[in-house]
Amino acid sequence: MSGLMLPKGFKTAGVACGIKKDGKKDLALIVSEPASEAAGVYTKNIVKGHSLKWTMNSIKGNKIKAVVINSGNANACVGARGDSDAERIAEIAAELAGCSKNQVLLGSTGVIGFPLPVENIEHGLHEAWPQLSTDRSTDAASAIMTTDTYPKEVSFSFSLSGKNVTLYGMAKGSGMIHPNMATMIGVFLTDAAISSEMLQKAITETVNRSFNRISVDGDTSVCDMVIILANGEAGNEKITKVCDDYNTFADVFGKAAVTLSKMLVKDGEGATKLIEIHVKNAPDNETAHKISSSIAKSPLVKTAMFGQDANWGRIITAAGYSGAEFNPDSVDILIGDLLVCKDGIGLNFDEDKALEILKKDEIRITVDLKMGDAEDTMWTCDFSYDYVKINGSYRT
Amino acid sequence: MSGLMLPKGFKTAGVACGIKKDGKKDLALIVSEPASEAAGVYTKNIVKGHSLKWTMNSIKGNKIKAVVINSGNANACVGARGDSDAERIAEIAAELAGCSKNQVLLGSTGVIGFPLPVENIEHGLHEAWPQLSTDRSTDAASAIMTTDTYPKEVSFSFSLSGKNVTLYGMAKGSGMIHPNMATMIGVFLTDAAISSEMLQKAITETVNRSFNRISVDGDTSVCDMVIILANGEAGNEKITKVCDDYNTFADVFGKAAVTLSKMLVKDGEGATKLIEIHVKNAPDNETAHKISSSIAKSPLVKTAMFGQDANWGRIITAAGYSGAEFNPDSVDILIGDLLVCKDGIGLNFDEDKALEILKKDEIRITVDLKMGDAEDTMWTCDFSYDYVKINGSYRT
Repeated sequence: MSGLMLPKGFKTAGVACGIKKDGKKDLALIVSEPASEAAGVYTKNIVKGHSLKWTMNSIKGNKIKAVVINSGNANACVGARGDSDAERIAEIAAELAGCSKNQVLLGSTGVIGFPLPVENIEHGLHEAWPQLSTDRSTDAASAIMTTDTYPKEVSFSFSLSGKNVTLYGMAKGSGMIHPNMATMIGVFLTDAAISSEMLQKAITETVNRSFNRISVDGDTSVCDMVIILANGEAGNEKITKVCDDYNTFADVFGKAAVTLSKMLVKDGEGATKLIEIHVKNAPDNETAHKISSSIAKSPLVKTAMFGQDANWGRIITAAGYSGAEFNPDSVDILIGDLLVCKDGIGLNFDEDKALEILKKDEIRITVDLKMGDAEDTMWTCDFSYDYVKINGSYRT
Repeated sequence: MSGLMLPKGFKTAGVACGIKKDGKKDLALIVSEPASEAAGVYTKNIVKGHSLKWTMNSIKGNKIKAVVINSGNANACVGARGDSDAERIAEIAAELAGCSKNQVLLGSTGVIGFPLPVENIEHGLHEAWPQLSTDRSTDAASAIMTTDTYPKEVSFSFSLSGKNVTLYGMAKGSGMIHPNMATMIGVFLTDAAISSEMLQKAITETVNRSFNRISVDGDTSVCDMVIILANGEAGNEKITKVCDDYNTFADVFGKAAVTLSKMLVKDGEGATKLIEIHVKNAPDNETAHKISSSIAKSPLVKTAMFGQDANWGRIITAAGYSGAEFNPDSVDILIGDLLVCKDGIGLNFDEDKALEILKKDEIRITVDLKMGDAEDTMWTCDFSYDYVKINGSYRT
């Protein structure tokens, strides 16, 4: 037995079907009984993987019975064959689950440009089917990983109209994690009763303040998605509009998504530190976000954090080229709670104190623009030798 | 004796005045006799260094007699003191050169947020003055370096209205090299007779197709500038409008700037390879540039090149998230002359041939959109372990 508590009506399995050369788990299967309302958000990359395109089409107007996700191969940029491979996999899963192929969602993550080994996946699905279980979610969470070093899961229990509700989430990331979805897959399962419209609203808002606020290396990938399935088994009064229950649900969903997002950043390729970039007192949200995002993506800031170097000059530099309008002569910068730059001027701060802060696993950088009351937070990680090592030889 | 040929009327010197802790040269002095017409382009970062701001003001309407550039300290983000320090340095140089302080241009590059040691610079200028020479340009080119591993200079001789003209250029870069000027200083000197208006036109166009087309890590800095001085000593008919002589001058200037740009990229922090990204058959220049720039900045593409991995999936991914509109199903990608992706579909290409291409010091990546006839070229370098090493502990 392994894994967190799944919501009622869901079972998962994860097996190794031979896509990954090292024999690790590479195929996850999730089944919902009864079929679920579903919603998703997808990469904004204009190149989109074939499995992803299948999911984007099938999720519209269909209740979802099964989700199949493989790692090790992105099923992207392989032409018409990629689309027919996706359809074939959906058919196999549909046959096992006793549903139509359009009730099956797919995800693929891994290397681009190689056809999927569909036979392996077929064998894998037949192997996974009898293993479906309510208490082995970690098998599935492991099977969706690429360069992640550990599976990432969360679950929360809460109450809606007097009924006990569970929300479970798994995610994979590592490298390429960046706003607009990156090489990132997130799957949330809940037994709440909620309409697909409200589910879509909740997932759009949630992703915007969690997965779209993390950056590992600024690259965004072609196969990435966050989906949520809700099968109603909790028996709560169905949420069909914005109401107290909706707000409770959205809060928990947000908490789960932010928790997973931080786990993704901490496990970024070669990451040794989680860095939170908080821009405050901005004139508007867009300005705050431009600056937080520019700092979060700066290789020079990220290498300085790795080197435990309180080089705030790189922070103000990244703010300055972000495209945001602000007054550089009124900017304060804090590393942890140490003020290192006041009104755009460097302070003669205590280097020992700075080093103490920078040695920690989690570092908070605050940029105070003193212009208004808008704010934005991004999470990123440092750039280490291992980032280069991992990414210099990923494909081969 | 060292250095390339300087144009008539220019002398240079470079000394160590103690800003750099390791005792290396850190102060360059350039003098023009007679005073020069001048033009410049500057960082677009909204945070601007104090020396840079001095130069942006002084260059307007003044004939330039001297240029003083220090490395090791950016004279940025130190408040009003940074402005008065800049003025003081200009005064010292003006006294030596017998001109007004507004005929002195300044440049500073290095760490942000620490006041300049003006006394060191004063001593340094007095030491440099008697060393001014027509054949020691490399001393000056060395004194402007920060993490560059070697000084970068070019010179060209050509003919304008029957007179022999020389154009000399020096540049420093390394790290943070990126469009919109980055931590990059370029100084061009010529004895051509040309109006400041035509000089401004030439430098704006030239920088746009050279220094603004290189990317090392996507960061752009607060102190960077390219300037050109023209003292007219060649005795050619003064260029005051677009004409054959102007075109000849602009061509040579462009060639010099592209040569220096490629040298900057090759010497990027930790760089082992020069990568040329060529996007062709785009519907318009902006689309071509968005794509070339996105690929040039992608850490995943850059680490793949370091690892000699023909991972074209990362190239099409970076194109896809560039924000440009194109049809992914008509894209061809070549690494060197090897077609690896045709019509958006990966080919089963010869991996040995790919490795042979990727082992070389210079790699050309071509992305053919097959949509129109616009094109764009960017130059970048790979990301290596040494990039992280150099940037993890720069300030301390």
